Amino acid sequence: MPLPTQVQIVEVGPRDGLQNEKQILPTEARIQLIDKLSASGLQTIEIGSFVRLDKIPALANTEDVAAGITRRAGVNYTALVPNEKGLSRALEAKLPEIAVFMSVTDSHSRSNTNRSTAEALATYPPLVKQALDQGLRVRAYLSTVFGCPYEGEVKPEQVRPIVEALVEMGVYQISLGDTIGVTNPLAVQRLLEYLGERVSLDTLALHFHDTRGTALANVLAGLQMGVTTYDSAIGGLGGCPYAPGASGNLATEDLIYMLHGMGIETGVNLDALVEINQFLSNLFQRQLMSKYSISRLST
Amino acid sequence: MPLPTQVQIVEVGPRDGLQNEKQILPTEARIQLIDKLSASGLQTIEIGSFVRLDKIPALANTEDVAAGITRRAGVNYTALVPNEKGLSRALEAKLPEIAVFMSVTDSHSRSNTNRSTAEALATYPPLVKQALDQGLRVRAYLSTVFGCPYEGEVKPEQVRPIVEALVEMGVYQISLGDTIGVTNPLAVQRLLEYLGERVSLDTLALHFHDTRGTALANVLAGLQMGVTTYDSAIGGLGGCPYAPGASGNLATEDLIYMLHGMGIETGVNLDALVEINQFLSNLFQRQLMSKYSISRLST
Repeated sequence: MPLPTQVQIVEVGPRDGLQNEKQILPTEARIQLIDKLSASGLQTIEIGSFVRLDKIPALANTEDVAAGITRRAGVNYTALVPNEKGLSRALEAKLPEIAVFMSVTDSHSRSNTNRSTAEALATYPPLVKQALDQGLRVRAYLSTVFGCPYEGEVKPEQVRPIVEALVEMGVYQISLGDTIGVTNPLAVQRLLEYLGERVSLDTLALHFHDTRGTALANVLAGLQMGVTTYDSAIGGLGGCPYAPGASGNLATEDLIYMLHGMGIETGVNLDALVEINQFLSNLFQRQLMSKYSISRLST
Repeated sequence: MPLPTQVQIVEVGPRDGLQNEKQILPTEARIQLIDKLSASGLQTIEIGSFVRLDKIPALANTEDVAAGITRRAGVNYTALVPNEKGLSRALEAKLPEIAVFMSVTDSHSRSNTNRSTAEALATYPPLVKQALDQGLRVRAYLSTVFGCPYEGEVKPEQVRPIVEALVEMGVYQISLGDTIGVTNPLAVQRLLEYLGERVSLDTLALHFHDTRGTALANVLAGLQMGVTTYDSAIGGLGGCPYAPGASGNLATEDLIYMLHGMGIETGVNLDALVEINQFLSNLFQRQLMSKYSISRLST
């Protein structure tokens, strides 16, 4: 089984996770969470987003979060940025990196940002150029890569031109998102083979939601194809609190447990993650949905 | 990705699942469960066990269960049998198949059945012979194949002689159990490669518990090695009711969802499984832990 020896984790809990939780954490708790995550050895942490305050109340005050966290050497702090206004805020917050985002499918794009996929894509070249000129690194999230809640199946042919355009702009990495958690290992392999004909797999990351329990199997397919960056969220943050066990993001603890078990290094301390899971479970007053953490906490 | 086109599922919910649930289902509910499972297209169903009645109260009355179910043509009904007494009961119940069981590790074997692994293994040749002479098929469960709660890591060298001995006895299939849910895809591959030097992989099945969320990734490794039989339990039955989200067996729904997604046939109707999950969730008064079913029930 060809596997990488080392993998990078992009911890998206404080952004993609919290954004999808009903309960809004106070700024101080968000700061504590991020500091605990950086102390665990995670090297890239998405701390929030610079979208309009009324859009995602859970992620308001990302400036205060950026100002309050302890910047640990070697840790890459990043945030979501939709436009120039967001870029200015990220620069003021002294973040070394931003992430732009868009959907592969028009319906999802319109529903989320009120514009088509082509319109979204057209706004990014000047934004990315500005960010690069200011010395920032730019990452991109691509949503509905494997399936769309409105359009169903998504074909690799729809994904590749967008990936190529983003690479062309100077985005250093594109995170391929299974937004609704429908994909499977074979589809992951096929998409990566198809994209690999045109772009280096080094420019790709995988971002699986664990809605149907297949996220780690999908990661395995990605590893076997040579992808070395995976997004995940502590405690699988982003699930539906009203459906016990409903999953959002792949839980960072479960991912790290599998990777370490296969001898793949991440630099992350798994025990520390279980403690953070407990810290968050206390805040949310429910057990967060990482099977690894649950197995540790119930023994 | 080399994958089989067809996979057999051994549904262990009515035995391995119920045996580990605190709440004891009435015989009538067990019968209904099994009839629903056979109606869903599952072709092998373990209906209970013929151990001493006081040992596993949840599985007492397996005779009544066997007498009460509707025997569907083409469906293979089986039960756990520890000894000659159990074999007689299985014969009286007119089951076409039995399963014997033992642990790879001495401590687990002693803790479960008060005898060493070697002692357990020594009791089986006459029992298996008797069963075969009576025209029964015999399967074997091997526990603690990938890890032991008392002894920790288990080496492939400990597993292979037992597997060879069981094949030698005439057992048609050995189910390799990750009893405590600790293994990973690389370890699965390595064990299968090692066993494959001596026995045909056709004689092996894989039985993963999803304690740490890795079961489907482990299944993928098994599929890639060519193993075509997997044990699972509807709703992931067998988890700890007092730890929400704690997992027992791999949930049949999640397994089938991934297999079908990759174009692998199972003959099972996934919608029917979701209905059975709901039937059981009502009986147990809690949502059973299949992420696929939860995703279906929360939309």
